[in-house]
Amino acid sequence: MDLKNTTWQERYHATLVYTLRCRLEDKPGMLGVLTTCIGECGAHVGDINIVGVETQSKVRDVTVYCVDLSHLKTILDRLNRIDGIDVVGVTDNVMEIHRRGTIKVESRVRINSLNDLRIIYTPGVASVCEKIKAEPAAARELTGLCDRVAIVTDGTAVRGLGNIGVLPSLPVMEGKAAIFAEFAGISAFPILIDARDLATIVETVKRIAPSFGAIQLEDIAAPACFEIEQTLRDALDIPVCHDDQHGTATVLLAALINALKTTGKTPEKCTALILGAGAAGYAITKMLLKFGLDDIVVYDSAGPIHSGRTKGMNPYKSELARMTNKQNETGTLADGFRGKDIFIGVAKPNMVTAEMVRSMAKDPLVFPLSNPVGEINVQDARQAGAAVAADGRTINNALAYPGLFRGALDSLAGDITLDMQLAAAHELAGLAPAGQLLPDMLDRNVHKRVAATVASAWRKS
Amino acid sequence: MDLKNTTWQERYHATLVYTLRCRLEDKPGMLGVLTTCIGECGAHVGDINIVGVETQSKVRDVTVYCVDLSHLKTILDRLNRIDGIDVVGVTDNVMEIHRRGTIKVESRVRINSLNDLRIIYTPGVASVCEKIKAEPAAARELTGLCDRVAIVTDGTAVRGLGNIGVLPSLPVMEGKAAIFAEFAGISAFPILIDARDLATIVETVKRIAPSFGAIQLEDIAAPACFEIEQTLRDALDIPVCHDDQHGTATVLLAALINALKTTGKTPEKCTALILGAGAAGYAITKMLLKFGLDDIVVYDSAGPIHSGRTKGMNPYKSELARMTNKQNETGTLADGFRGKDIFIGVAKPNMVTAEMVRSMAKDPLVFPLSNPVGEINVQDARQAGAAVAADGRTINNALAYPGLFRGALDSLAGDITLDMQLAAAHELAGLAPAGQLLPDMLDRNVHKRVAATVASAWRKS
Repeated sequence: MDLKNTTWQERYHATLVYTLRCRLEDKPGMLGVLTTCIGECGAHVGDINIVGVETQSKVRDVTVYCVDLSHLKTILDRLNRIDGIDVVGVTDNVMEIHRRGTIKVESRVRINSLNDLRIIYTPGVASVCEKIKAEPAAARELTGLCDRVAIVTDGTAVRGLGNIGVLPSLPVMEGKAAIFAEFAGISAFPILIDARDLATIVETVKRIAPSFGAIQLEDIAAPACFEIEQTLRDALDIPVCHDDQHGTATVLLAALINALKTTGKTPEKCTALILGAGAAGYAITKMLLKFGLDDIVVYDSAGPIHSGRTKGMNPYKSELARMTNKQNETGTLADGFRGKDIFIGVAKPNMVTAEMVRSMAKDPLVFPLSNPVGEINVQDARQAGAAVAADGRTINNALAYPGLFRGALDSLAGDITLDMQLAAAHELAGLAPAGQLLPDMLDRNVHKRVAATVASAWRKS
Repeated sequence: MDLKNTTWQERYHATLVYTLRCRLEDKPGMLGVLTTCIGECGAHVGDINIVGVETQSKVRDVTVYCVDLSHLKTILDRLNRIDGIDVVGVTDNVMEIHRRGTIKVESRVRINSLNDLRIIYTPGVASVCEKIKAEPAAARELTGLCDRVAIVTDGTAVRGLGNIGVLPSLPVMEGKAAIFAEFAGISAFPILIDARDLATIVETVKRIAPSFGAIQLEDIAAPACFEIEQTLRDALDIPVCHDDQHGTATVLLAALINALKTTGKTPEKCTALILGAGAAGYAITKMLLKFGLDDIVVYDSAGPIHSGRTKGMNPYKSELARMTNKQNETGTLADGFRGKDIFIGVAKPNMVTAEMVRSMAKDPLVFPLSNPVGEINVQDARQAGAAVAADGRTINNALAYPGLFRGALDSLAGDITLDMQLAAAHELAGLAPAGQLLPDMLDRNVHKRVAATVASAWRKS
C-alpha cells in the first residue's frame, strides 16, 4: 500500500491490532526511533509495556493498529532494518480476544455443597417445575426466560461481508451477544440455522422458540428477512425483531431528529433520498413515514423505485413504490440528489460524489451508512456543504437494540412495535449531549433509559 | 403428615427450603424454644441470622427444610402458638434461587472503550469471520464452539416428574447447565423443542447444530430417545449423547466396579437383574455387557424380557432379548431376584421388598436408582443382607456428564463412544476414596480427571 496516501479515513478503519514484541538496544532514544518508524508507516501506536530487561537490551510489547496484512508486513520490514531493534514476536490481538469466543454461560449460583446442588438441580428443582406446570406464566419469573434472547442468523447478509454462511458469521453473533450482556444484562445466544429456504428457517425458530423470551433476527438477506420476520411475529407471542432493519432505523431516526433541530428543518417540509432498498432501507423508509417525513424517494441498483417500474422489483419494493416517490421520479441517482434535504445511504461504499451533495437543498443532512466504508466520506460530504454528515461509525445499531430488547422483556411485550422503536429514537435523541447527534453508547445508563421508555411505550399500547 | 413417623429417608428428601422471619421476645431461652419446636416437627434447621434488634425483641431469619407444604404449615402453626414467638414472614428459598433462572450469558471481554467494541464487533470482527470462512476448522478455536453444548429436551421424561412438557422442564435444564458451567467450564444452553414427533426433533437439532460443539439430549422418553440419538449421531459430526442413558450408566458402572472389589466378586461370574427397560435400563445393559458382565436379565412392567415375549415389546427391547436372559427366565420379579448377585433398579419407587433382596446370592449389590425415591430404601436393603446398597442420591449422573463432554470437546471428538464412557467409569472408580463407591462430585479435580481420561480414550480410538 501507498503509505504516503493513507488517509485518516483508512487509518480509522485500521481494525487489525497486533502486539509486536521488540528487543531494543538499551540506550536513550531507541523508543523514539521505534515509534517514529511506526508513525512513518501510517500506523497508530497503542500501549507499550516493558516485558523483559536484559543486560544490553529491553524487551517491550508494542501495540500497533494496521489496515491490512501488507501494512503489518511493511512495519515489520522497516523495524527489522533498524540497528538495535529486533521484532521477536507478533501477536494478533483480534484473534486472541476472539479465541474461545467472546461470550460464556455461567451459573448464577455457586455450587459449593450438596445442598446447593439439590436445590438448583434434582430433587429440589421439582417444586419449581411443578409451579410452572400449574402456572406457565411463572416461567417468566422462575427461569432465565426474562433475560434470554436468541440471535438467529442464516449467515446470508453479514455486515460488510455478505453471504459468508453460518459458521463464519458466528464471531459477529457472539459480539452482539457480548454487547447484549454488557449493556443490558441480556443473556443472548447465537443460533445458526444452516438452511437457505425461508420455510425451514421459520419452522426451526418456531420449534425452539419456547427456549427464549425474544428472538433477534440478524444478518438475514432481503427480501427473505421481511417474510421471515413477519411470519414469526404472527406465529409467536414473544417479540421478534430483525436488528438490521429496526435497530438501524431507530438509531438513524434519533440522529436525524437532532440533525433536523440543528438546521431548523421540520420533517413535514423535508425531502429525502434513501439509497438502498434492502433490510435497512425498507425499515428506515417505514420509520420515517411514521415519524412524519413523507416525501421520500428510494433508489436501488436499478434506479428510483416508482410505481411504473418493473425491473428488479419484489413485493416489498412494490410496497415502497406505493408509499414513496410522490413525484414519480425516474431519473439517475445524480438527478435524485438535486434539491433533496436528506440523504440516507444503506447500499455500497463510494457511490455518492461531492457533486451530488452540492446539488442538494441548503444545509443538507447526509448519512452514508454503508459498512465498513460509507457511500461518501463524511469529510468530503461536509466540504461539499452538508450541514450534518454521519456514517456507520456514528449510527451504530448497538445504541438501540440492547434497550429495545431489555424494554420488551421487562414489560413482557409480545412484540417490538414501530411505536416502541419511535419512542426509543426520541429517547436516544433526547439523551445526546448538546452539539452531538447521539449519546455515548458505552454509557450503560443510556441503555437503561431506552429500555424504560420502550417498556412504557408497550404498556401504553 | 404423621410427624412421629417421619423417617430419616423422608427428612433427607426434604427439598423445600424456607426462611422464616421470626420475632422473638428478647429473653434467654427463646431460641431454644424455637429450635426445639421445629425439631419436634421433624424438620432440620439451617442458618439462623439476626436481622433486627428491637426494644423488647430480636428478629431472626431461620432456615428450615420441609418435606412438603403441609409440613411447613404444621411448623408455622406450632410456632405461632408459642408465647413470645411471632413468624412475620416466610420466603421460599428454592423459588428465590431459581428466580430469573440459574444461568446467565456473560461477555468474556469488558467493553469499556470504542476500541473494545470495534474489536469484538464490527468492523474488527471481520478478520475473524474471514479466517473461519477460509478455514472452517478455525471456528473451534476462534469462537465459543469449543465450550458450547445444547441441552435438548422435549420434556417427555423429566426426572421424577414424567411428561410435563418443555416449559416446566426448563428449570431442570438450567440446573444441568449451571452444573456444566461450575464443574467443567462448559457453556451449555437449554433448547426446548416443542414437538412430539421424532422426525421434527431430529430435523430441528440438525438445523441448529452448527451453533454448538456438542449436543446433550435430556429427559426424552424411551423408546423415542434411542432413535433420536442414533439418527443424530449418524447425521452430525459433533458428539450427541443422551445423558439419561450414558451419564447414568457411566456412574453406575463406576460404583459397581468398586462394589465388586469390596465383595471380591468378578463380573464374569456375576448375575444381574435390571428392573426397567427405558433409557437408563437399555444403556446400563449395553454398558455392563461391554464391561464383561454378560449374565443379565432385564425386567419391565410386563415381566422379564425374553426372546419369546410379545407383550409390550419394541425394537430396543427385542435387542435386549437377544443380548440378555441366557436362561430364558419367564417368571415373576420375585422369581427373578432369586440367586442374583446384582440388582439395578431404574423403574419406579418401592417396587422391591426386603424379601426379594434376602433371596439374592451371598453379599448382593443393590442399586435402587429410581428418582426421587428408590425401588427399595437402601437401609432396608442393607438390613436384608445387601453388601452394598446405593440409590440415586449416590449414583448421580452429574458425576459423569461434565467430564464426558469436557473431554469430548477438548479432544474435538466426533462422538462420545462406549469406550470413552467405559474409560470415564474406570477413572471415577479409581478416584473414589477408600471405602467409598464414588468420588466427591463437588471436587472440580474429579471432573478434570474424567475429562482428561475421556479425551485420551478418544485420541486412542
